[in-house]
Amino acid sequence: MAKNENDRADYEMLDAYWRACNYLAAGMIYLTDNPLLQKPLKPEHIKNRLLGHWGASPGLSFSYVHMNRLINKYDLNAIFLAGPGHGAPGVLAPVYLEGTYSEIYPNKSEDKEGMRLFFKEFSFPGGIGSHCTPETPGSIHEGGELGYSLSHAFGAAFDNPDLIVTVVVGDGESETGPLATSWHSNKFLNPIRDGAVLPILHLNGYKINNPTILARIPHDELEHLLLGYGWKPYFVEGSEPMDMHGKMAATLEQCVLDIQDIQQSARANNDVSRPLWPMIVLRSPKGWTGPATVDGHKVEGYWRAHQVPLAAVKENPKHLQQLEEWLRSYRPEELFDDRGRLLPELKTLAPQGTRRMSANPHANGGLLRKSLRMTDFRDYAVPVDKPGRQEAENTRPLGCFLRDIMRLNKTNFRVFGPDENTSNKLDAIYQASKKTWMGGYLPEDEDGGELSPHGRVMEMLSEHTLEGWLEGYLLTGRHGFFSSYEAFVHIIDSMFNQHAKWLAISEEIPWRAPISSLNLLITSTVWRQDHNGFTHQDPGFLDVVVNKNPKVCRIYLPPDINSLLSVADHCLRSRNDINVIVADKQKHIQFLDMEAAIKHCTKGIGIWEWASNDQGQEPDAVMVGCGDVTTQEALAAISLLREFFADLKIRFINVVDLYKLTPESEHPHGLSDHDFDSLFTKDKPVIFNFHGYPWLIHRLAYRRSNHKNLHVRGYKEKGSINTPLELAIRNEIDRFSLAIDVINRVPRLQVAGAHAKERLRDMQIECSQYAYRHGVDQPEFAQWTWPD
Amino acid sequence: MAKNENDRADYEMLDAYWRACNYLAAGMIYLTDNPLLQKPLKPEHIKNRLLGHWGASPGLSFSYVHMNRLINKYDLNAIFLAGPGHGAPGVLAPVYLEGTYSEIYPNKSEDKEGMRLFFKEFSFPGGIGSHCTPETPGSIHEGGELGYSLSHAFGAAFDNPDLIVTVVVGDGESETGPLATSWHSNKFLNPIRDGAVLPILHLNGYKINNPTILARIPHDELEHLLLGYGWKPYFVEGSEPMDMHGKMAATLEQCVLDIQDIQQSARANNDVSRPLWPMIVLRSPKGWTGPATVDGHKVEGYWRAHQVPLAAVKENPKHLQQLEEWLRSYRPEELFDDRGRLLPELKTLAPQGTRRMSANPHANGGLLRKSLRMTDFRDYAVPVDKPGRQEAENTRPLGCFLRDIMRLNKTNFRVFGPDENTSNKLDAIYQASKKTWMGGYLPEDEDGGELSPHGRVMEMLSEHTLEGWLEGYLLTGRHGFFSSYEAFVHIIDSMFNQHAKWLAISEEIPWRAPISSLNLLITSTVWRQDHNGFTHQDPGFLDVVVNKNPKVCRIYLPPDINSLLSVADHCLRSRNDINVIVADKQKHIQFLDMEAAIKHCTKGIGIWEWASNDQGQEPDAVMVGCGDVTTQEALAAISLLREFFADLKIRFINVVDLYKLTPESEHPHGLSDHDFDSLFTKDKPVIFNFHGYPWLIHRLAYRRSNHKNLHVRGYKEKGSINTPLELAIRNEIDRFSLAIDVINRVPRLQVAGAHAKERLRDMQIECSQYAYRHGVDQPEFAQWTWPD
Repeated sequence: MAKNENDRADYEMLDAYWRACNYLAAGMIYLTDNPLLQKPLKPEHIKNRLLGHWGASPGLSFSYVHMNRLINKYDLNAIFLAGPGHGAPGVLAPVYLEGTYSEIYPNKSEDKEGMRLFFKEFSFPGGIGSHCTPETPGSIHEGGELGYSLSHAFGAAFDNPDLIVTVVVGDGESETGPLATSWHSNKFLNPIRDGAVLPILHLNGYKINNPTILARIPHDELEHLLLGYGWKPYFVEGSEPMDMHGKMAATLEQCVLDIQDIQQSARANNDVSRPLWPMIVLRSPKGWTGPATVDGHKVEGYWRAHQVPLAAVKENPKHLQQLEEWLRSYRPEELFDDRGRLLPELKTLAPQGTRRMSANPHANGGLLRKSLRMTDFRDYAVPVDKPGRQEAENTRPLGCFLRDIMRLNKTNFRVFGPDENTSNKLDAIYQASKKTWMGGYLPEDEDGGELSPHGRVMEMLSEHTLEGWLEGYLLTGRHGFFSSYEAFVHIIDSMFNQHAKWLAISEEIPWRAPISSLNLLITSTVWRQDHNGFTHQDPGFLDVVVNKNPKVCRIYLPPDINSLLSVADHCLRSRNDINVIVADKQKHIQFLDMEAAIKHCTKGIGIWEWASNDQGQEPDAVMVGCGDVTTQEALAAISLLREFFADLKIRFINVVDLYKLTPESEHPHGLSDHDFDSLFTKDKPVIFNFHGYPWLIHRLAYRRSNHKNLHVRGYKEKGSINTPLELAIRNEIDRFSLAIDVINRVPRLQVAGAHAKERLRDMQIECSQYAYRHGVDQPEFAQWTWPD
Repeated sequence: MAKNENDRADYEMLDAYWRACNYLAAGMIYLTDNPLLQKPLKPEHIKNRLLGHWGASPGLSFSYVHMNRLINKYDLNAIFLAGPGHGAPGVLAPVYLEGTYSEIYPNKSEDKEGMRLFFKEFSFPGGIGSHCTPETPGSIHEGGELGYSLSHAFGAAFDNPDLIVTVVVGDGESETGPLATSWHSNKFLNPIRDGAVLPILHLNGYKINNPTILARIPHDELEHLLLGYGWKPYFVEGSEPMDMHGKMAATLEQCVLDIQDIQQSARANNDVSRPLWPMIVLRSPKGWTGPATVDGHKVEGYWRAHQVPLAAVKENPKHLQQLEEWLRSYRPEELFDDRGRLLPELKTLAPQGTRRMSANPHANGGLLRKSLRMTDFRDYAVPVDKPGRQEAENTRPLGCFLRDIMRLNKTNFRVFGPDENTSNKLDAIYQASKKTWMGGYLPEDEDGGELSPHGRVMEMLSEHTLEGWLEGYLLTGRHGFFSSYEAFVHIIDSMFNQHAKWLAISEEIPWRAPISSLNLLITSTVWRQDHNGFTHQDPGFLDVVVNKNPKVCRIYLPPDINSLLSVADHCLRSRNDINVIVADKQKHIQFLDMEAAIKHCTKGIGIWEWASNDQGQEPDAVMVGCGDVTTQEALAAISLLREFFADLKIRFINVVDLYKLTPESEHPHGLSDHDFDSLFTKDKPVIFNFHGYPWLIHRLAYRRSNHKNLHVRGYKEKGSINTPLELAIRNEIDRFSLAIDVINRVPRLQVAGAHAKERLRDMQIECSQYAYRHGVDQPEFAQWTWPD
């Protein structure tokens, strides 16, 4: 045959395979029986509830099967991310056809009964979801919440030089902010060291009820936009299937060749200039190959194709007939044998084994994950001869620890931060690795730029992109560490929510191997944002965290350097969790030597004997510190109280692991009631100085016996421009307020404490006045240390 | 003089004015005394703590003073938004120079002592913040959290046909997702009806410690990008001041002329095609005109200029000398007279009165706000003859209400939603106004597109952009209503936080006139996301809301149509609040006729007598419903219990206004303890069926006397694909679980209730099994009604 005829035959096979996908996708939405249409279609074959999204599905399968062709042709190592994850039928269909689905879920076998169950259980209670959920083989991107496909794809490609991450980007999704900025990720991808991301921007033109912006701007504007984002766009546009197969096959192949050229040239010549990576704009009708019109209204190529194009098939015989015609238009009898098996000549179109995108181990990253090589965190300890005497920057030694871990793990560990790693005092990391930068360079970068195309520290002023990169990196089996300003972690609240949900489901899926935990350091915290003001004061991310499944959430508030190191070491070794570590970057008083810190962090909560004087007795009151500044102020309050009341018995407790406060039935780290009571007593006043919003502590501890005596201080939205101590005073977490709290709550001090209270209030006012007069805290108080 | 000489003289005046700005900006950061440098600079003139951001300041003033020139020349009506709000000195300086600051804050007078105080109080405790906080005259955009300047600018421009919104967009900010997508806002701006947004993308090249992406891509890539976003970019690039004045003056004037051409042509010809709006790329050095190098390191034009370029001036005589040279380089003696007043010939460069951008009433929108013309919400009531008998879609009549309000308020009310107004059943609104669309049109749009360039319903798949538009619209004195899927409201958690902080501060500023409340309808709620699955189930936005200042936060959970209408009416009339309304869009049982709804919503909480049988007695138990589905299930539980225990006395309480649960000392809506106790009793079991995460109720009510008997059900992250009832069962908010809860907690049923519990569990299992078998709920239960 001539080449053209050869191609034509190839494309007809491709088309048949694609028809099989579309048939399955429609079947998933509609059928509960008669999967091969071997009988005339009857209402009883139709599901009671029609769910799922047809609109995006054909375009997703189209991209998938064309990628399959090239995987076979070039033996590519590729995975597939579906931005419009709600078009899951378009992904599940090829996954089923290439056999992976049946291997993992044997009752969804490759035969008629398996197909029937596969159809029935789609978007059905107890079955599988309508997005590319963790249950979907090959998925690392659910697409339930839109906007993160491209950043996930880049995360997967980093440090995977042989991988091609195919990612279908929806045109609806493209309107979201996170997606819009993530196109710039190409300024952080090194063609020598990293793999390739191949975006297919799928312009099917519509969202739920609206056209999409990118589909309705002129062609040249769209081309400008993508060139401006630094890509080389190829356009595949049309609707006639055979024509489109030809265009897509040629164009996708060109992209793969471009990628190979770029990589080979960069690697052969050690050329780290930023290439223009290829991408495809696929403009095809929404609901492609589905009903053109329904009841006289346009459906294919319009927003009406978004979900279920024919909604009343069970009740409306005309709709039922139209559905049958639609399904039969794929000619299932030419695709499957009468036992429901895909014909062997079609079967060969799929890649084999782990070359199948649904079986590629990169999409089940735990399989590839290697434990991080760790240095001994004890080596970074600050010596603490006596607790509470000297100050040091809490995050700086962590930077050294991360630096040395980076040195030991040159290909599977990255550090992420939105332009803040230096600000957050983690800059020692640059001694091991610079910041990844594939943008232009200037001479001044030599002095303090810390930039390199080979860098492994990821900095871009987009928390969304960083979080997406990190998630993609972890989901493909690697390790990472993300630090961010506390107030602005709220920017990624919803990404946290989605990742927590992914992890919670994944833990219940036996074939999903555990991945590294997502480690998030929250720093530049509220109590040292006295100078940046009110917008920068928000410790509320923890309130978002505690709503998610306790199986996968951990929160740590180490009070000083050595405890931070101990906690960080633990987190970096853990799997399948989201570890939130709260620790400020500024100078703070140090409390624990390394031995004490390890012991304390391992317990997660405990009495600090050296700060307590109730040994062997019931205390008059319990003082609790949770957080760095709040622990300091709580201890300062104790030292003040001792000056007034030498015989007052105060027990001091520090909480590192916040979930210790929850009942053991609610969280794996929760203390038993017995242990809780033995720490907090059953009836003594407890003054709890908390880093965050105070009511969070009540939410965690409301079931505890002594809850009625639990008095919590924390941030309560009082702040503009302050000094640190004045900010504490305004929110009543300061030493004076806490000491007064104790006096107010210890019965025998009700009268005897009057003078002390007056004196404490005077000191507090004096501090405030000093701050408002001099703009800084009174040195006497700012340099407080724990007394001998 | 020849024109060129004339221009030269003009630019020299402009430059002098700009030097005055830069002098003031640097003075704010450094000086606490000697404001005019009439004495040699000494350490005691320097602040104890050096704060503020120099880097962005000169570029901000540069843009401001050039805009001033054109305001005077063309009598423009303009306001100014500073994306890099942390460069506040660059905004505060011209605001002070044009006299507004002294008018509002008389002690910051236009003389030496006023200047000294103006300097001293910048970023000083009790003074003003380092961002364009609400205290800044002319500011509607604080810029503390980056990313929202452009969407705020568009919000301000909508329906303000004569306004030019100048907005400096930082290149750091440009990396954020919200900013990246907000460039597309031009597809929603109608040149006939709306004003103009004039972005000045300020490429000063650096963030805190990093270069910016947009400053380090090739010129043609940047040009492509902006053309692709649909703008006409002009470039002003350089560093030599006089050269730059010439370029900026000419270019900014060209932009203003372009804008006038576009508007005049569109308005004269009724031409609603989308124009290419002009914008400027201003590439100038970071820290422009500041120290070139410090201690041998490059500062001007590098990231080191970001904050305080000379940090050790108080201790280091060389730094002090360099600071003095820097300050004197602006030649203050040529700018201010010896009493500290700007020279009269410079003074005339500023616009007068409300033409000053700092005094433009659009930036203090409450001044321009007109109350919304309202229709009577009672007209949209559904008749409810008997409570709990018929179903209807809860949000649909609200759509009609909004439609008619839209008809009455054609120029100051808009409705916002991310492609979801139809999905959310608010589509009646399109009868009054279509969706704004300035993208391309296709023939099929005629049938169901609901698009129009004249539309006033704003739909884009970016919650960030919508929220930004709405905030900008409200801050300039108009009204709006935003509806969104519940789970994805988390996307704008941080924007909510920032707006709440803005409002809380604004309430304390006497000259800020109150603005309309931000009304946010949260719908497509968790309990009807059984089919979309786990990613779509998240009622946690409320947990974010309650952390913010209670003065400005309101939360309503109306259980049915009439209560939703009553709540919406209240919210649309309110000012300075954020009203969060939670109401699902699907069919739900109706409980209250309009009269009862008004009464109930006005109280915010109350006993439903018709559902209670404890009249005149202490009940055995209190059942509480808060939310639509949760109220239905609570009532269904009561009806089940009555079948088993005819003499069981149950009081039913419905909560609409969530803050009623908080102590009155904590929130203006909080119930007194006495009222709370009289509703919830002091000692009876309370089964509280809550819409959201259950622990939120404990957090609000932990101080109440009967808290120990408060048993809360709510969403606890149990869900994938379910039916509605099965989803309720998995989270134990269903009627069976609740009935069992009551039996478990009423002492006299401990033994007597055993049989009933068994039967209830059987029914529950039967329901689940039915769902898992048929994919829908058992009709008998799905169609539950309140018994006669």
